[in-house]
Amino acid sequence: MAPPLIDSEVHGHLWGTDELRAVFAERAKLQGWLDVLVALGDAQAELGIIPAAAAKAMAAEAHIDALDLDLIAAETRRTSHSTLGLIVALQHQLPEDAREWVYYGATVQDITDTWTATAIRTVCGILWRDLRLIEARLLELAQDHRDTVVAGRTHGQTGSPTSFGLKAAGWADEIRRHLDRLREGAPRWIVGQLAGSVGNLAFYDDLGLELRARFCARLGLADPLVSWTSSRDRVAEFGALLALVTATLAKIGTEVYQLARPEIDELQEPAPAGTVGSITMPHKRNPEASEHLATLARLVRSSASVLVEGMVAEHERDGRGWKAEWVALPDACLLTGAALSFALTLVKGLEVHVDTMRDNLGPYSGSERALTLLAPRLGKHRAQQLLQEAMGAGRERRLTLVEALRAADLLDPALEQALATPYAGTAGEMVDAVVRRGHAAREHEPERWPS
Amino acid sequence: MAPPLIDSEVHGHLWGTDELRAVFAERAKLQGWLDVLVALGDAQAELGIIPAAAAKAMAAEAHIDALDLDLIAAETRRTSHSTLGLIVALQHQLPEDAREWVYYGATVQDITDTWTATAIRTVCGILWRDLRLIEARLLELAQDHRDTVVAGRTHGQTGSPTSFGLKAAGWADEIRRHLDRLREGAPRWIVGQLAGSVGNLAFYDDLGLELRARFCARLGLADPLVSWTSSRDRVAEFGALLALVTATLAKIGTEVYQLARPEIDELQEPAPAGTVGSITMPHKRNPEASEHLATLARLVRSSASVLVEGMVAEHERDGRGWKAEWVALPDACLLTGAALSFALTLVKGLEVHVDTMRDNLGPYSGSERALTLLAPRLGKHRAQQLLQEAMGAGRERRLTLVEALRAADLLDPALEQALATPYAGTAGEMVDAVVRRGHAAREHEPERWPS
Amino acid sequence: MAPPLIDSEVHGHLWGTDELRAVFAERAKLQGWLDVLVALGDAQAELGIIPAAAAKAMAAEAHIDALDLDLIAAETRRTSHSTLGLIVALQHQLPEDAREWVYYGATVQDITDTWTATAIRTVCGILWRDLRLIEARLLELAQDHRDTVVAGRTHGQTGSPTSFGLKAAGWADEIRRHLDRLREGAPRWIVGQLAGSVGNLAFYDDLGLELRARFCARLGLADPLVSWTSSRDRVAEFGALLALVTATLAKIGTEVYQLARPEIDELQEPAPAGTVGSITMPHKRNPEASEHLATLARLVRSSASVLVEGMVAEHERDGRGWKAEWVALPDACLLTGAALSFALTLVKGLEVHVDTMRDNLGPYSGSERALTLLAPRLGKHRAQQLLQEAMGAGRERRLTLVEALRAADLLDPALEQALATPYAGTAGEMVDAVVRRGHAAREHEPERWPS
Amino acid sequence: MAPPLIDSEVHGHLWGTDELRAVFAERAKLQGWLDVLVALGDAQAELGIIPAAAAKAMAAEAHIDALDLDLIAAETRRTSHSTLGLIVALQHQLPEDAREWVYYGATVQDITDTWTATAIRTVCGILWRDLRLIEARLLELAQDHRDTVVAGRTHGQTGSPTSFGLKAAGWADEIRRHLDRLREGAPRWIVGQLAGSVGNLAFYDDLGLELRARFCARLGLADPLVSWTSSRDRVAEFGALLALVTATLAKIGTEVYQLARPEIDELQEPAPAGTVGSITMPHKRNPEASEHLATLARLVRSSASVLVEGMVAEHERDGRGWKAEWVALPDACLLTGAALSFALTLVKGLEVHVDTMRDNLGPYSGSERALTLLAPRLGKHRAQQLLQEAMGAGRERRLTLVEALRAADLLDPALEQALATPYAGTAGEMVDAVVRRGHAAREHEPERWPS
Repeated sequence: MAPPLIDSEVHGHLWGTDELRAVFAERAKLQGWLDVLVALGDAQAELGIIPAAAAKAMAAEAHIDALDLDLIAAETRRTSHSTLGLIVALQHQLPEDAREWVYYGATVQDITDTWTATAIRTVCGILWRDLRLIEARLLELAQDHRDTVVAGRTHGQTGSPTSFGLKAAGWADEIRRHLDRLREGAPRWIVGQLAGSVGNLAFYDDLGLELRARFCARLGLADPLVSWTSSRDRVAEFGALLALVTATLAKIGTEVYQLARPEIDELQEPAPAGTVGSITMPHKRNPEASEHLATLARLVRSSASVLVEGMVAEHERDGRGWKAEWVALPDACLLTGAALSFALTLVKGLEVHVDTMRDNLGPYSGSERALTLLAPRLGKHRAQQLLQEAMGAGRERRLTLVEALRAADLLDPALEQALATPYAGTAGEMVDAVVRRGHAAREHEPERWPS
Repeated sequence: MAPPLIDSEVHGHLWGTDELRAVFAERAKLQGWLDVLVALGDAQAELGIIPAAAAKAMAAEAHIDALDLDLIAAETRRTSHSTLGLIVALQHQLPEDAREWVYYGATVQDITDTWTATAIRTVCGILWRDLRLIEARLLELAQDHRDTVVAGRTHGQTGSPTSFGLKAAGWADEIRRHLDRLREGAPRWIVGQLAGSVGNLAFYDDLGLELRARFCARLGLADPLVSWTSSRDRVAEFGALLALVTATLAKIGTEVYQLARPEIDELQEPAPAGTVGSITMPHKRNPEASEHLATLARLVRSSASVLVEGMVAEHERDGRGWKAEWVALPDACLLTGAALSFALTLVKGLEVHVDTMRDNLGPYSGSERALTLLAPRLGKHRAQQLLQEAMGAGRERRLTLVEALRAADLLDPALEQALATPYAGTAGEMVDAVVRRGHAAREHEPERWPS
Repeated sequence: MAPPLIDSEVHGHLWGTDELRAVFAERAKLQGWLDVLVALGDAQAELGIIPAAAAKAMAAEAHIDALDLDLIAAETRRTSHSTLGLIVALQHQLPEDAREWVYYGATVQDITDTWTATAIRTVCGILWRDLRLIEARLLELAQDHRDTVVAGRTHGQTGSPTSFGLKAAGWADEIRRHLDRLREGAPRWIVGQLAGSVGNLAFYDDLGLELRARFCARLGLADPLVSWTSSRDRVAEFGALLALVTATLAKIGTEVYQLARPEIDELQEPAPAGTVGSITMPHKRNPEASEHLATLARLVRSSASVLVEGMVAEHERDGRGWKAEWVALPDACLLTGAALSFALTLVKGLEVHVDTMRDNLGPYSGSERALTLLAPRLGKHRAQQLLQEAMGAGRERRLTLVEALRAADLLDPALEQALATPYAGTAGEMVDAVVRRGHAAREHEPERWPS
Repeated sequence: MAPPLIDSEVHGHLWGTDELRAVFAERAKLQGWLDVLVALGDAQAELGIIPAAAAKAMAAEAHIDALDLDLIAAETRRTSHSTLGLIVALQHQLPEDAREWVYYGATVQDITDTWTATAIRTVCGILWRDLRLIEARLLELAQDHRDTVVAGRTHGQTGSPTSFGLKAAGWADEIRRHLDRLREGAPRWIVGQLAGSVGNLAFYDDLGLELRARFCARLGLADPLVSWTSSRDRVAEFGALLALVTATLAKIGTEVYQLARPEIDELQEPAPAGTVGSITMPHKRNPEASEHLATLARLVRSSASVLVEGMVAEHERDGRGWKAEWVALPDACLLTGAALSFALTLVKGLEVHVDTMRDNLGPYSGSERALTLLAPRLGKHRAQQLLQEAMGAGRERRLTLVEALRAADLLDPALEQALATPYAGTAGEMVDAVVRRGHAAREHEPERWPS
């Protein structure tokens, strides 16, 4: 069967990374399920629930490449059972006396949810790594451009000056909060599942809790206090984080997209050699990656919402929400992976046009500064009104702010001097604070996600 | 690269159909793009825009199986251009003098949007066919069970009796409205795209409009009055229909799911031989398909919302929303295809437990009937109060409604007789009306979507 | 209790219109419910189901201003029943012998859904009126600016020239499709509800269908074939239309917002006297209304999705989805009303800066035109490469396109002449077609929604 | 202007609580804005930015009840500025020389975002209190029903037995995670905003950072490192938590709704005296509150998604997403408040029908137990097959499980004894663990949210 878009040979790089496809690809997932089965068998053998030889045989044979994928597919369809195809195929490889001990007392969610937790762990590792790489670069940008003056823009209109470094610091600040969310939330997500048929491990008699503890420990997962077969807040919260993370990346991308307009031309995304912007309009250079970050965030947000909807589950297992996770969670992870990768390339190679930034400030960007200095003398509201009149008159005669103020008899030497340089307030100190805090946090945390 | 879930060999049948995968699979899509390129070339040759020989050469070589997929993928990545890889690969197959005429004056959306319109047309055909098959079966069920008494349930509580046929008629009624929506909306969706770089076909000088007309006609698509490169309401509306359709199918599935509870046991979905409900609980039979319809509807609704978001596009082309369609639209179509297929199997093989339906009515299901008959005599609100008291007392003594009414001195022979048979009001006439209307509509419309 | 935002005295104008608040305000709604009760009583009296005097008494007393709102509220809370408070309050006004005949055989949804249909009808009227007013203005703009050259922009980058009239025509084209959707869909939405307890009108014996017909006719609503108490596709489809409509308005707003950037300055929204852009930055003029259209569209899209979710209802009545309509539908309508009103003001007073549009084309906007003319001579792909080189070299030396072509030895007199004027292809003809079609449609349709 | 639904006199209790309306009501909000203005003035006076007398005058007059609401409304509309109306009205109350110092250097978001943080703090307090009350009751239910046997249900089908206490423990477990999320996330949300025009506090010269620190401290809010005027992840994360919380409450409600079906009758929500289930069907008792929890969760999820969308902001201020918060955030808070209140009443008065729970187990609920005991002897897969055959034969002859096993020659005395009592595995121990953990956590945390 041919692949859909997210996995396309031609366009797949837009919707995922090889690293994440290696987690969620069908064979990888089936291998993950097998690994969980093996861990279960080993823990069961340890407790004497199944013969040690059976566990050993399973461990030896549980390799997806050795199993008959056609058989798995055929049995899955014949039985309409999510894991029975895999079980049957594994049994085919086993000696007669081991066969009975495969999947002993387990149910579908024990295998699939536990695998999900391991997959989430891997994604957490990627998030941690990539968010920190992005943060590092943003802190650099913030520092490098601590005093690079750029027009502050509100409602799409240029206003008072600010610094480009402060923009980057604001981005870094969001990323740092995502790292905090990740660190705090992960213990709720990286949790094994061993519930049995209806959550109480009845199949294992009085060994259930001990078995669960050992099973989870073998896989490096936390032991849940109770089954989460129909407590999907763990997965929903993780999805919500992915939506927040990709929204931040989309925000960065959108800023680049807008400031890369030729009429503004303050930023430009890196264009590797070979990039073709437009075939019919040979002069164009499109902010493809920046734009794409917005696309990815929309899709992830949409998947994340499906995961929250799945929380409203009935009884001890409810396929309606849980099966929706089978699509929504891998999709959200793959798309987030792509977003991280695009964003990293974007911030690494971002071109900052310092001169254009200054040129774009516009003739009246000093108006707030003038207001600050006139207000104590004239009263703020009166100063404001006089300024507005002065600028209105000045604009028609194409005067600069200083000229307009002079024409309106509002200029004094102190004001003139103050307006000679664009004033970005405490932008620099704010940048310093963010950089300091960022570095401090980074020093006290591991570079690699601890798993 | 290994495939994600929607295309899984093992579980892919849950998330799409072969028929729809054949539309949206990577190779099918690329072939679709090639077919659009060929149609463009032919129309251009007809108008003398490109040499006839070049068009002919393109038509001869534009077969995806003959092209080098690795080259397509590599060039797509190298240039970050969505169609350039395909163009280059096609050019490789062409004689020197034809190469220049490939993709002559076209842009990405001309090819991809036009292909999208053809894909939507195919999906419309499948929708038309499957919705009508489902409707046919529902009309049958409605007729067969015109007078099959079943408890009406509101807020999850059993109330007055109704007929199962009326349930089925209500489903058929929704399906018929979807068919109406499909018929009315399709002319807005099955529309070609030839816009050129910014929508005005400037590349083609004064031949643009004529070229567009011929290009669309060759592909059996309507000619848009103006470019829809950033008018995505067409696609968004189509997505909204898919969301509505799958919601109806999910509603049917949910009804079966709930009424298949063993405590209710009024409906059961067909279980093909071989189905395994539960490995640990060998006695269970799960309403897998019914349940799955709810899963599919959630995912489609989520994709549909992404498509609406995409309508808020900037300028003459905006990749943010349009690229999100690349994922959201095929996903929605595949998932809808799966839902139609599951729903069709479900309604075809639905087991209706007529006796249990009657048994489940409960001892007080005649209360509304009693109210009707007592109200003219006692006044409705007084009758209501007396009834409530009578039933309250009766419930404690485990009396039937008739017994309780007798005990409360409310029974007379007419009432007793009226309560002897469950009364489903005009359910039968309502069924007749729906069936009549359904058949009338079906007679005057084609069985196959006319394309 | 004090009002929330949508109804705020201070900011309410942002989230609704007085016209729509008059439909959905509490008292208006309760009056609407009373009107439905009266229509039901009249129809029942006509058929002899209730005494004519009772119906008359109800009609005389069913005025919300005469009823005791505190009593309504108190009884609603005491009984947890949505309409019982209103019924009790009405009964208080009635003579003893009429009291029993209020709400005779009806259930909550009979009253509230029927009222919803009348409210939707009013909203349809507003949509029809405002969309047509917006369309009229857009057709005017399209015609007036048929040949106003403006930079076509794709991916936020300026490309080949197009005409501003074509932009407006594209907007008008979307609006026209919404008018089509409205006309086609309305018969599915403006439909009465008389279902009785579980949908089969059992309370009314064999008079149910006749009663329903007369009840609906009295209110000018279509008679549903079967109950839609749990068939919410009607409402969901209407909500989807509101989401599509507001998305189009948001698209127009976003275009203005972006093109009103001072660096671009091609459009500006009207600023009524008195508007204050920014207190701290006195020189700013913010595109408030344009921006707000995007806000409104997001909220409506979100409500619309809730309505689709509500379709997956269980049994004959399911409060989970239906009660969500109580919030989502009025919200969507109010917000859409606000959007229509803002959009109308926006397009009516839109300032089009024709000169800036031309100035912004940029030095290389003729590149596609050059490509068209060079391609037949050099081959398209070769022409493209040579052009790119010429422009690359030219850009560094700050040459115009003509100069760059001359420097690269690509210029000939025909080309030079062609590049002297910006070329917008068939933009003009496209505008003509849209305007023609728009006027033709308008001539054959009523100005006021026929209800 | 009359109020919409969320604030309805008649139905408002369904969509909010008085406690929360008192936070978000228009006057409360305006008073909140005034309080923020006063705190700003005081901090400014402290630093000598404005005269102490002006600050004092503001503090004395900043009472919403003393201001002219009509003036506020009129000026807001005239200026199209969100806070100017309020400022003007306050200035009217002030002595001449204080007027100039109102709102000195502030912008809209400084006031509104800071107020939002205080409102979020109040909501956090309510969440903390109500979630803990719900948790306390759930822990009680868990303990009380530690060994109350109930059918475990998967896919809507009854399976092996479990305990009702374990259900309640699972709910408590989710609630505890929400408390953790609340505690961890709150420091990111309860943060002041003082940004000035474009985020760098330029108006205040070199006093900006010190002013911000004092301003935030006065309001008990954390000092943000940098402006969050366009960093809306704080608000989006809070909204995500509300969506998760209400989804859990909806899950509890749905469980009650389903188990309250008369065919199941295991749970019933409390019905205060006076409740009327159905007017036409006097015998019905509807799970109104349980059902309504699902309604509320859908609406909150929808609002939460709007908040995430708002994160993709442009530049230093972007009204598109931020203004959507004005509706989506209060709505989400009010609806969550209602959900907490309904849920608390529900779990407090929940009726648990212990006997029916046991009766509903069904004849074959011991099948997993039988499998456990037969598997070591026969092998699991063989045991499973033999069991399925035995039960198939038994079902037709209406045998109990023990009888069926005997008939199939599978019974031995140990098995017969084991099947005499429903076996709920380690449900009891799991309950104990959750209760222990819950109590331990509760002991070490404050009862009231520390603010």
